[in-house]
Amino acid sequence: MIKAGIIGGTGYTGGELLRLLALHPEIEVTAVSSRKEKGKKIHTVHPHLRRFYDLEFVEPKVDVFSECDVVFTAVPHGEAMRYVPELCRTDVKVIDLSADYRLSREKYEEAYGKEHRAYVEAVYGLTELHKREIRKAKLVANPGCYPTGAILAAAPLAELEIVERVVFDSKSGMSGAGAAPTEFTHYPNLHEAIVPYRVTNHRHYYEMEQELKKFQYDIRISFTPQVFPGSRGILTNAHVFLRGELEENELKEIYEKFYEGCYFIRFQENVRLSYVRGSNFVDISIYRGDDRAVIISAIDNLVKGASGQAVQNMNVMFGLDEKTGLDFPPLFP
Amino acid sequence: MIKAGIIGGTGYTGGELLRLLALHPEIEVTAVSSRKEKGKKIHTVHPHLRRFYDLEFVEPKVDVFSECDVVFTAVPHGEAMRYVPELCRTDVKVIDLSADYRLSREKYEEAYGKEHRAYVEAVYGLTELHKREIRKAKLVANPGCYPTGAILAAAPLAELEIVERVVFDSKSGMSGAGAAPTEFTHYPNLHEAIVPYRVTNHRHYYEMEQELKKFQYDIRISFTPQVFPGSRGILTNAHVFLRGELEENELKEIYEKFYEGCYFIRFQENVRLSYVRGSNFVDISIYRGDDRAVIISAIDNLVKGASGQAVQNMNVMFGLDEKTGLDFPPLFP
Amino acid sequence: MIKAGIIGGTGYTGGELLRLLALHPEIEVTAVSSRKEKGKKIHTVHPHLRRFYDLEFVEPKVDVFSECDVVFTAVPHGEAMRYVPELCRTDVKVIDLSADYRLSREKYEEAYGKEHRAYVEAVYGLTELHKREIRKAKLVANPGCYPTGAILAAAPLAELEIVERVVFDSKSGMSGAGAAPTEFTHYPNLHEAIVPYRVTNHRHYYEMEQELKKFQYDIRISFTPQVFPGSRGILTNAHVFLRGELEENELKEIYEKFYEGCYFIRFQENVRLSYVRGSNFVDISIYRGDDRAVIISAIDNLVKGASGQAVQNMNVMFGLDEKTGLDFPPLFP
Amino acid sequence: MIKAGIIGGTGYTGGELLRLLALHPEIEVTAVSSRKEKGKKIHTVHPHLRRFYDLEFVEPKVDVFSECDVVFTAVPHGEAMRYVPELCRTDVKVIDLSADYRLSREKYEEAYGKEHRAYVEAVYGLTELHKREIRKAKLVANPGCYPTGAILAAAPLAELEIVERVVFDSKSGMSGAGAAPTEFTHYPNLHEAIVPYRVTNHRHYYEMEQELKKFQYDIRISFTPQVFPGSRGILTNAHVFLRGELEENELKEIYEKFYEGCYFIRFQENVRLSYVRGSNFVDISIYRGDDRAVIISAIDNLVKGASGQAVQNMNVMFGLDEKTGLDFPPLFP
Repeated sequence: MIKAGIIGGTGYTGGELLRLLALHPEIEVTAVSSRKEKGKKIHTVHPHLRRFYDLEFVEPKVDVFSECDVVFTAVPHGEAMRYVPELCRTDVKVIDLSADYRLSREKYEEAYGKEHRAYVEAVYGLTELHKREIRKAKLVANPGCYPTGAILAAAPLAELEIVERVVFDSKSGMSGAGAAPTEFTHYPNLHEAIVPYRVTNHRHYYEMEQELKKFQYDIRISFTPQVFPGSRGILTNAHVFLRGELEENELKEIYEKFYEGCYFIRFQENVRLSYVRGSNFVDISIYRGDDRAVIISAIDNLVKGASGQAVQNMNVMFGLDEKTGLDFPPLFP
Repeated sequence: MIKAGIIGGTGYTGGELLRLLALHPEIEVTAVSSRKEKGKKIHTVHPHLRRFYDLEFVEPKVDVFSECDVVFTAVPHGEAMRYVPELCRTDVKVIDLSADYRLSREKYEEAYGKEHRAYVEAVYGLTELHKREIRKAKLVANPGCYPTGAILAAAPLAELEIVERVVFDSKSGMSGAGAAPTEFTHYPNLHEAIVPYRVTNHRHYYEMEQELKKFQYDIRISFTPQVFPGSRGILTNAHVFLRGELEENELKEIYEKFYEGCYFIRFQENVRLSYVRGSNFVDISIYRGDDRAVIISAIDNLVKGASGQAVQNMNVMFGLDEKTGLDFPPLFP
Repeated sequence: MIKAGIIGGTGYTGGELLRLLALHPEIEVTAVSSRKEKGKKIHTVHPHLRRFYDLEFVEPKVDVFSECDVVFTAVPHGEAMRYVPELCRTDVKVIDLSADYRLSREKYEEAYGKEHRAYVEAVYGLTELHKREIRKAKLVANPGCYPTGAILAAAPLAELEIVERVVFDSKSGMSGAGAAPTEFTHYPNLHEAIVPYRVTNHRHYYEMEQELKKFQYDIRISFTPQVFPGSRGILTNAHVFLRGELEENELKEIYEKFYEGCYFIRFQENVRLSYVRGSNFVDISIYRGDDRAVIISAIDNLVKGASGQAVQNMNVMFGLDEKTGLDFPPLFP
Repeated sequence: MIKAGIIGGTGYTGGELLRLLALHPEIEVTAVSSRKEKGKKIHTVHPHLRRFYDLEFVEPKVDVFSECDVVFTAVPHGEAMRYVPELCRTDVKVIDLSADYRLSREKYEEAYGKEHRAYVEAVYGLTELHKREIRKAKLVANPGCYPTGAILAAAPLAELEIVERVVFDSKSGMSGAGAAPTEFTHYPNLHEAIVPYRVTNHRHYYEMEQELKKFQYDIRISFTPQVFPGSRGILTNAHVFLRGELEENELKEIYEKFYEGCYFIRFQENVRLSYVRGSNFVDISIYRGDDRAVIISAIDNLVKGASGQAVQNMNVMFGLDEKTGLDFPPLFP
């Protein structure tokens, strides 16, 4: 059994890692940290996990976690860098779910407007695009939720370098805002609402740019995120203005070929968030209008958009089938 | 024009008073307080009210508010008592939307487990039941949201002293929890949920007991509140175990007679919260089973359950038609 | 009093007309039709309107409705043309809420792929843009819900002829789909969902094109609609790619100047659907990114997007202040 | 491998059986019927199951299904009786998810007001209460969703014969109404709503009565169901009026003892529907007030309330551990 540790086990991504790893046949979770809940059983914080863990939360000490084979860091942005470099000096493989290692140092400092004091090189863990590097990686930076849905929607066309411009208009469930209550997550503020935020300046833009420019250097990207009244899911409309005259059928062939062998990419006539809920699948629908193509992707933000993709990456890092422990159907309706 | 002041203008009941008074033909709002937002225009806190007020929030000073004809205190429980006694010593009529003056001093101290240091006598402002006293009142204690729906559902049967037992199972929209974010109001905690709370010991029980025992001294009352995923509305199922053999038709006649002339009480075949949304109506449906009667009432918790009833009481206190400024249809769908 | 008739009084737009006209000081509703519910009281179909109307539904006979001063046709697309031409031959002013008269005959036949057999000329009733023509109109074609939000978001920039391209990504509440149950409106299919539909070929595109090309002939427009889990509201993100280097402040000035004197246009720092719910307001927020401007508009699809704008147009047609009967605050939260 | 067939594979319970059996290590689904979708692949009807089945829907012919080891009948009430008696004459074990075999013939005819023309004896499949009989059963009648939550909430107290009266006030997600669109399931009718229905006369009452009277003959039961705006879950408040003076702690001990060894019964401080979502767990919270005990149970209506319990029963019938294929965590948030 592979021994797994989770630094930051009380948030939504930590809880989701626990949910998923409870099903994984090759993994034993041996340590889960929380400063605040130290000494408490896991189900006192995550009542839905009662019956699945007998562990208690521990302090996030590197000497404890360095006895694991793999450690997931599921702490807020800016905090992961307190653990990752030290863990990387041990034999542990590390998968960081924060934003701290997703960007090049330069882009990080541009996006965050400050120096990165604990930078180390990581592999960007968008599994379908970087499987080869992930296989050998010691540190994987797990992608952001919006970039996962957006990059996978546009990559096949960017690879052909035929994208004149792409506008990503994304809608996320509220679990993306984390487990701590704020004005933004206050129920009456979300009821019967679609709330755009960081309309032209969300930091996930930098991940999209970094990854898609690897395919097509002159691609032009626009991105607007918003939340919708639901708990899980990100739906991304990629409005793609193309060079050239591809028909809908040709587009579909391009996507099918690009994602050949990718178990978690499914093409649907009409995607629905509820068709991927709780699962690691990325459902994609392709439409061609007179003026543009629209590629719509649907993911569960906590699974493929966070903890599921982290497990998928772990599978790849340990030479397992990428779908080990993740091969279960979504929860519809 | 009657000059109205609002002490506590930033919460949901304050905002709702502003919404309703904007429509009232006999009222001019002359002062609205907020310590925190002092000096700001009303629409900076309530963007939906842009175009309706040019006022700025002021400090809650009694000498300012004593120039009004009527003052609504819409501050949290325990805070109203800082203003009410002093206001009562002026010529101003006062309508308190907090819980501070709803109970007799004894019941208050039992319910809250502490001495009431600023007690004054108030009229309990359930308009349909106490219109005569409200007409002459200087201080009206506006009822709680749950008690409004529950008491109105059971009063006609209690008056006949035929209730063996009544179980109120009530469901409230989340605006009832106020405008401040908490764990309880965090979106993902409410999504696809019905959340019971204070299952056997909610303080609103005391209001129900106080009012219904006036009709039938030996009535036995049970109450469980819960929230549902919506913003507005309280639906109350009153499961009533009756002495005697009344048929459904007889029950309906009893209710129609009891509420004769009450404009805001409407009988519906099947109530729906959306049929009262945004309005001061109380919709009631009556069902008779083999074992019990079920009386279901639907109100908007912020209107008839708070600010609307406060305006209705004000109308009565000033000799206006009780429906002045409140006679508009609900918002369906 | 102006005598108003409604042909098609049982759907959501018919019900909303009844809600709004109940508040209108200059209007008396004298006839409401429904073939199916003929002879029934209005509140049997619209229980929320109990207390507001004593009328019964009648057959949609033109000789009855020709005694009105104004008739609203609120029947499905394709059906309005059975009444409109005949009504236009009487003295009645007509406001058609269907799609039958919004487009030029040519565009209609292109959009619908068939001949229009009952064409008459109408004024396109986007009140803020065509007030002068509406004032003299005998037949007003009330705009579609999506076009209302989209056109108002882009018109000030189109007027300057500086729009290279605009992508409208719109989200509508489910009441837009009408009162009849379908797969599309089945609750579990909408729960926790954002559902795009007619992704590249919705007919409302033609209205946007027709109106915006009047301002800027070479504008390029893309449009994708979707529904979100809520009942009311349309939020439109207009991603606008501009010629030239306008700053956010300059954009705001352009909009404020363009909509000067337009009571129902409000600029908000951050729009929310709940800030316009139930009202005729159009709230607009303006953002400038490095790559594009994003103009976000929020309307209530049944009010400004349908029945409210119809009443606003009626006010203009009869020489009343455009806000008569519509000057009430939105319902938040 | 056990060969399983599903008669009625297109509805929500059929889809949920397919979801659950895809995870079951001892089961192979060999036949799934649908008259209407005959010849189509399963994922054309259930897009969320793409990747999990390569089967096509077939006609519901008994000679095909009699080759299975177990057949689940997941057709509407009244239709199961067309297949069950004939299947019972073969070697197949049958689990019927409809209401056709849950009641004694007498009670069935009382509840449904007509003769049962295809009656056979079945074991009532509330697994925790009837495991011994289920083990030997050839036909299991899978319980209704409301009765599952209600009976499990009250059984431990009924067994002690100390229940004077119990009022079940239950709230169900909309998936309980099935996959076919109706007025009742139309989104705007459910939005921001709690909708009681069959307030005093729901047929599930008879199951509750039949089962609880086995424990305590003189128990008095009341039941009111309603739907809430969510897709999955049933929350049942059991307001129990007790004989005797039991404290909260004593109640908790009674429940823990009664359900000792029952893996799927979990006690939580405060149940939440989201803590059981997608899983076979029954979460129970216990509260003691001055007047009554309140026992609150939470289940997923499609899992423990239907297809999950059917699989649990199948496990028992085939001598497997009852949690085989069902031992996965709920989906929170």
